[in-house]
Amino acid sequence: MSKGLPKRSEDYSAWYNELVKRAELAETSEVRGCMVIKPYGYSIWEKMQAQLDLMFKATGHVNAYFPIFIPKSYLSREAAHVEGFAKECAVVTHHRLKNAEDGSGIVVDPEAKLEEELIIRPTSETVIWNSYRNWIQSYRDLPLLINQWANVVRWEMRTRLFLRTSEFLWQEGHTAHATREEAEQEAIQMMQVYADFSEKFMAVPVVRGIKTESERFAGAVETYCIEALMQDGKALQAGTSHFLGQNFAKAFDVKFATKSGELDYVWGTSWGVSTRLMGALIMAHSDDSGLILPPKLAPIQVVIVPIFRNEQELQAISEKVMSIKTALETLGITVKYDDRDTQKPGWKFAEHELKGVPVRIAIGPRDLENNTVEIARRDTKEKQMYEVNEALPQKVEQLLQNIQDHIYKKAIDFRETNTTQVDSFEEFKQVLEEKGGFILAHWDGTAETEANIKEETKATIRCIPINAKQEEGKCIYSGKASRQRVIFAKAY
Amino acid sequence: MSKGLPKRSEDYSAWYNELVKRAELAETSEVRGCMVIKPYGYSIWEKMQAQLDLMFKATGHVNAYFPIFIPKSYLSREAAHVEGFAKECAVVTHHRLKNAEDGSGIVVDPEAKLEEELIIRPTSETVIWNSYRNWIQSYRDLPLLINQWANVVRWEMRTRLFLRTSEFLWQEGHTAHATREEAEQEAIQMMQVYADFSEKFMAVPVVRGIKTESERFAGAVETYCIEALMQDGKALQAGTSHFLGQNFAKAFDVKFATKSGELDYVWGTSWGVSTRLMGALIMAHSDDSGLILPPKLAPIQVVIVPIFRNEQELQAISEKVMSIKTALETLGITVKYDDRDTQKPGWKFAEHELKGVPVRIAIGPRDLENNTVEIARRDTKEKQMYEVNEALPQKVEQLLQNIQDHIYKKAIDFRETNTTQVDSFEEFKQVLEEKGGFILAHWDGTAETEANIKEETKATIRCIPINAKQEEGKCIYSGKASRQRVIFAKAY
Repeated sequence: MSKGLPKRSEDYSAWYNELVKRAELAETSEVRGCMVIKPYGYSIWEKMQAQLDLMFKATGHVNAYFPIFIPKSYLSREAAHVEGFAKECAVVTHHRLKNAEDGSGIVVDPEAKLEEELIIRPTSETVIWNSYRNWIQSYRDLPLLINQWANVVRWEMRTRLFLRTSEFLWQEGHTAHATREEAEQEAIQMMQVYADFSEKFMAVPVVRGIKTESERFAGAVETYCIEALMQDGKALQAGTSHFLGQNFAKAFDVKFATKSGELDYVWGTSWGVSTRLMGALIMAHSDDSGLILPPKLAPIQVVIVPIFRNEQELQAISEKVMSIKTALETLGITVKYDDRDTQKPGWKFAEHELKGVPVRIAIGPRDLENNTVEIARRDTKEKQMYEVNEALPQKVEQLLQNIQDHIYKKAIDFRETNTTQVDSFEEFKQVLEEKGGFILAHWDGTAETEANIKEETKATIRCIPINAKQEEGKCIYSGKASRQRVIFAKAY
Repeated sequence: MSKGLPKRSEDYSAWYNELVKRAELAETSEVRGCMVIKPYGYSIWEKMQAQLDLMFKATGHVNAYFPIFIPKSYLSREAAHVEGFAKECAVVTHHRLKNAEDGSGIVVDPEAKLEEELIIRPTSETVIWNSYRNWIQSYRDLPLLINQWANVVRWEMRTRLFLRTSEFLWQEGHTAHATREEAEQEAIQMMQVYADFSEKFMAVPVVRGIKTESERFAGAVETYCIEALMQDGKALQAGTSHFLGQNFAKAFDVKFATKSGELDYVWGTSWGVSTRLMGALIMAHSDDSGLILPPKLAPIQVVIVPIFRNEQELQAISEKVMSIKTALETLGITVKYDDRDTQKPGWKFAEHELKGVPVRIAIGPRDLENNTVEIARRDTKEKQMYEVNEALPQKVEQLLQNIQDHIYKKAIDFRETNTTQVDSFEEFKQVLEEKGGFILAHWDGTAETEANIKEETKATIRCIPINAKQEEGKCIYSGKASRQRVIFAKAY
């Protein structure tokens, strides 16, 4: 609390790093590339998990747990998959340590070398489809709608808290179906679930789209995604849902007897979101004073701060606060009463602002006399006096909803302002340089053009938006024909 | 469903393995020593997690997440800890795979060797106390009451589903305190929380006790534990809570400024339960027909099976069922309506018995006429006709409570019958051989005697019970003086 955060306008990256640290969300660990998710950050993640888990179950999915270790040979089974994932990963080669003979400490026991190396899962398609082979015999065993909450490891050279770490937490859904149509519908459905979660709970608007071939998941036939725009004009891929075709079924020999008695390969999907969503949440809404959390995911929705000069005043205030707190909690609102006597009110205000508590109620001796409280909303910092009466809890509930709606609307407005349609490569480069954001442009559909644009500008095709207007146009790079604009951006 | 389970009386071990497999709780994975927790098993674990998490939060704890990797050097810092844990473990030595030059597949890239090997956490004291050093400066930062839900790996040579696997799921609490007394109270409190959970939710009675020095956690000053008795007369350690003294604070240099301004090392605890509890739950109650689940942890508490000959009958029954189902759900009861037309009622009855659904309601055309249902309880297999009226939901609710109470009482009775007090080593060996169970005997308090008894009989001291009667006696092995009986048993 000693000094302010770096300003977003001056150094967005430093602002993000400091915010994550000072709001006690996470910190870099001494263990290379790994983060420690601190209690306050984890409590936000728990709220995300709980809501997503509800939504997965409401769409018929169940949870299970598969081993963290993937035998090296599994990775080689699916040709595209091995190229995508058998690269930077954590490899377990031994299963024992022993005391060094020279007494210098502990060393790896060379006699405990594994016959086959084990990879810490970077994603679990291989180990799961290897199980599915034994679980699926007939169409009666389908669909199989399974999700797993787990940690995964992808060895990253440059890491960033929540956005890119070697170990991260996520969920991965893996489903198996009797028909192509059903699997495609599942992949699309889960993209929609992610989009709903992002918009209705995180208050982060997203574009629903399809990845180009070069950005597709290694082993997928189609990758659906949701793309969000951050305040610095960079895009963030918030979730992906893959239609796997029969690729993994073929790689792991997963066949089923159809209703008509024939044998066919099973159709699959996989889909995941991770602690990366924490990064999106932080970057989408927060300001130079700290976090701004959507009320639906805030671990503390309302904080009550007493203003007092002595123990007697605190006692009188606390009595009043207890009845307000109870009334709010009856409505399901999470309330914290911050009656610490080790810190001044101003210090507490700054701390709760930094931590993004959506609503702050302050109450002092004069409020007691007047039967009022001062209510401040975190998003706009507006303050207003409220009478303490029976209607107060509903008013606070309404205020929380207003904040949820307002930050969502603000994010939509920001995205609209920062989405630009361009028709030439010159314009493209200029907008990318001067304004950033989403750029809607025609593209000829080739990986070559995509690669050239990326090479020259660092911008990538974030997605081919779903349900976008079909229009004749010319690729900004090659001039060839195009029938739909795609979204380009620099991305996290 | 094709044939019955092995009988407990004939082959307890085969019965357990088959039950875990056929009830679709878990299966061995092709990955050495690891298990796949299948959806039905995982749904029980989720109920356990949810309840434990509530109890941890009710006692002031918060969740966080620490890295899965532990640098090899961390393990060496605490002398006892390294002896206990730096043995059979998964060691990550490389961070990249590459295509073999001879095209034979993928191989470990020798150039991607880590400078320092990383161990997959077998437990997280070291990595957590290394963080605590930066988190704790003053008594104001204490206590720190943190829990983590995570996977851990201990390389096991002989594995058994849920009871002993190389990777397992658990929670590990790690707390830091300003005083010895507070830390000791915390360790005892968490043992009590585990005991309450085991008895009130799992319906498994436990002995609260202290481990002997040789069975103590590596790095602890005192290990508190809860010990349960399985139906085959073997003991199972269901949870442990460790008072760590200042051992880890000293190893990781975690000091704090006391109120009087001096510097002192922090006092610590750690405590954990794991998916091993699933094994205890299964073995404590189940019978030769399958699982018996306590209603408080059963994913499905009531299953309703329609008895019908044609679509018309099914339709009439389903209408009735829907109103019963809704009425039960209003009371918070989890109900499944099993209206599959691919299986006969008898087959369904056997399946739900196998899976331990506490209450089964069957309803056929004659029941419709008579306005009745047949209700069967899984634990005693008793069946009774009930009139369908407004009181039915409350009666089912009461029945679920009766089942919960009954299986707990049955487990207590079993334990009483199988707890034997002995006063000589001859008697000890005879009871151990012929009857098994808990054996209460005097012990001279030395590790030597303990080791000798273990060597000669394979029985270990499960714990020194807390609050047990103090009585003068003589050690059954050495004849030396003893003031309290301890519990011996063969154990899982």
